[in-house]
Amino acid sequence: MVRASLRTDPAPVEGMSQPLCLSIDAMGGDTGPAVVVEGIALALARHPGLRYLLFGDEEKIRPILASRPALAAATEVRHTEVAVAMDDKPSHAVRAGRRRSSMWLAIQAVRDGEAQAAVSAGNTGALMAMSKICLKTMAHIERPAIAAIWPTTRGESIVLDVGASIGADAAHLVDMAIMGAAMARIVFDVEQPTVGLLNVGTEEIKGVDFVREANRILREAPIPGLLYHGFVEGDDLGRGTVDVVVTEGFTGNIALKTAEGTAKQISSYLRSAMDRTWMSRLGYLLARGAFEALRDRLDPRKVNGGVFLGLEGIVIKSHGGTDAVGFAGAVDMAHDMAQHHLMATIRQMLDETPEIAPV
Amino acid sequence: MVRASLRTDPAPVEGMSQPLCLSIDAMGGDTGPAVVVEGIALALARHPGLRYLLFGDEEKIRPILASRPALAAATEVRHTEVAVAMDDKPSHAVRAGRRRSSMWLAIQAVRDGEAQAAVSAGNTGALMAMSKICLKTMAHIERPAIAAIWPTTRGESIVLDVGASIGADAAHLVDMAIMGAAMARIVFDVEQPTVGLLNVGTEEIKGVDFVREANRILREAPIPGLLYHGFVEGDDLGRGTVDVVVTEGFTGNIALKTAEGTAKQISSYLRSAMDRTWMSRLGYLLARGAFEALRDRLDPRKVNGGVFLGLEGIVIKSHGGTDAVGFAGAVDMAHDMAQHHLMATIRQMLDETPEIAPV
Repeated sequence: MVRASLRTDPAPVEGMSQPLCLSIDAMGGDTGPAVVVEGIALALARHPGLRYLLFGDEEKIRPILASRPALAAATEVRHTEVAVAMDDKPSHAVRAGRRRSSMWLAIQAVRDGEAQAAVSAGNTGALMAMSKICLKTMAHIERPAIAAIWPTTRGESIVLDVGASIGADAAHLVDMAIMGAAMARIVFDVEQPTVGLLNVGTEEIKGVDFVREANRILREAPIPGLLYHGFVEGDDLGRGTVDVVVTEGFTGNIALKTAEGTAKQISSYLRSAMDRTWMSRLGYLLARGAFEALRDRLDPRKVNGGVFLGLEGIVIKSHGGTDAVGFAGAVDMAHDMAQHHLMATIRQMLDETPEIAPV
Repeated sequence: MVRASLRTDPAPVEGMSQPLCLSIDAMGGDTGPAVVVEGIALALARHPGLRYLLFGDEEKIRPILASRPALAAATEVRHTEVAVAMDDKPSHAVRAGRRRSSMWLAIQAVRDGEAQAAVSAGNTGALMAMSKICLKTMAHIERPAIAAIWPTTRGESIVLDVGASIGADAAHLVDMAIMGAAMARIVFDVEQPTVGLLNVGTEEIKGVDFVREANRILREAPIPGLLYHGFVEGDDLGRGTVDVVVTEGFTGNIALKTAEGTAKQISSYLRSAMDRTWMSRLGYLLARGAFEALRDRLDPRKVNGGVFLGLEGIVIKSHGGTDAVGFAGAVDMAHDMAQHHLMATIRQMLDETPEIAPV
């Protein structure tokens, strides 16, 4: 199989920036190509050199592009007949969509070196299954993970795995620590991001066996390029105690959705509280700027874009229900990961990681 | 071993209410007996017939009781020399505190039928270890769980296990569904509480094996006294989709702490947003009543009191860092569970549960 070419993943060259091309699945998401096209237009305005390969139904895409000449000039549309449905089982999506769906072809463009990262708002399971088949996992990486940006009181953290796979072992957690730290070096522009393992207590006696074993490995064999912090708990996520929180995918997915649900719940409490009396409604009007600032901080579109880590190429999952602003955020993430050489950073960190001592 | 007597767990008798006695560990928690004594005084005012057995350092307790004659009249103080420290390992706490610590003796009073429920704000691990040794687990129950009250947009739900044990199998999840439903029948006063299994997706194909297996059992052999809803996700917790959410203890503990952390995080965002301009500060003043209502809804003291389920007696864990209002909430929980025959309700539901068919 043809691997991602040098152009897909250039070695970091000081002061030299590559013209970037991103491949986009126009047919993913709950709302169809209009949101995707509007989203890539927003991202193009922020990254004027960017180019797009846009996969999808040409008849639907062309009219939307027609009114956006700058975008049309930066975009090559490739017509596809097949679109993966949001509720397709991954196995069915692969059977029906291999080599011909907009999702598959967007990923394949990364594999073939035509694009440096792929973005899709489609079905997560199908996107991961196709990415694994088409791109393959990186050497020395057991399985991929999905990393999310988590807003914290101190700024942002990276949390992984938020649902690529169920179950983990110690080696998988250590791989995720390395990959998450590589992503953090780019996202947060720090040399040595701090990394914690999510557990039920900070005492070393607590928790499940594979988490304790990963803790031992990370303590005993320090990895260049990351600072291992130790265990963190659920409430450290919002506190931003570490730059990178590593956990198994079942727990990570539940933690992510629990936090999203709690944020919605409190917003709903707040809305009904402010609507109680004419005094509180007046107070709301006066403090509207503050509420807008709060809404802005809680805006899930600002942290849209799950990064698939551990594959031979960069794939970004946008939330399926997002709007153009959210999709543009996922495109920004793809741009940054490609621009700052995520693949090379991960490979370099893996190369520098000492052999894991068996127990 | 002497089992909890009939008095501990009377059969439900219509229209007849038993005089209740609760055993209290005065030495648990971060702040010592003053908070505990003030807390039980608050609860006594709400439940005037209540009696207490108070275990702890008499020299510290007597002066606080002296100024509260009504409480002193309802309370029997039993002096103990040994107190379990908040950071003791459970094994050490059991060795050092068995049969002589305030925590152990409070539990033992339940075993011996002197009290109908025990309350402690001490170290969770030690309290669970001592409860298991002293009270033993109920017949047909593999292991105990800790159930928490979870505030939702619709009211409240019960979530278990939030940290009694790590790992679970299908039978343990089914036991928790039954015990959680028994508690929900009391707390929410409904005949058939709805129960969901926490998972990463609502499609039946998703998730870990033992969760899917528990789902199969609950679907195929309906349990009288509960309505099985199916899978729920992390964001269903705050939404209050079901009355009872069942999950394994590692994930449940992380979900609970993640929600607590997110609530704190948003409160801190809100505070700094309201402090931005003089307009927003004025708005804050006008809407102060609304913010107080919000604070009240988010007050963790209102849902204080983790219920240990699956033991031959009722034990309630108060948060270690709570104040008197919070401790009184845990005492209320103990009162309600004893008053409304939690033990008999669980036993009845277990008796009525069909045999679990092997796969």
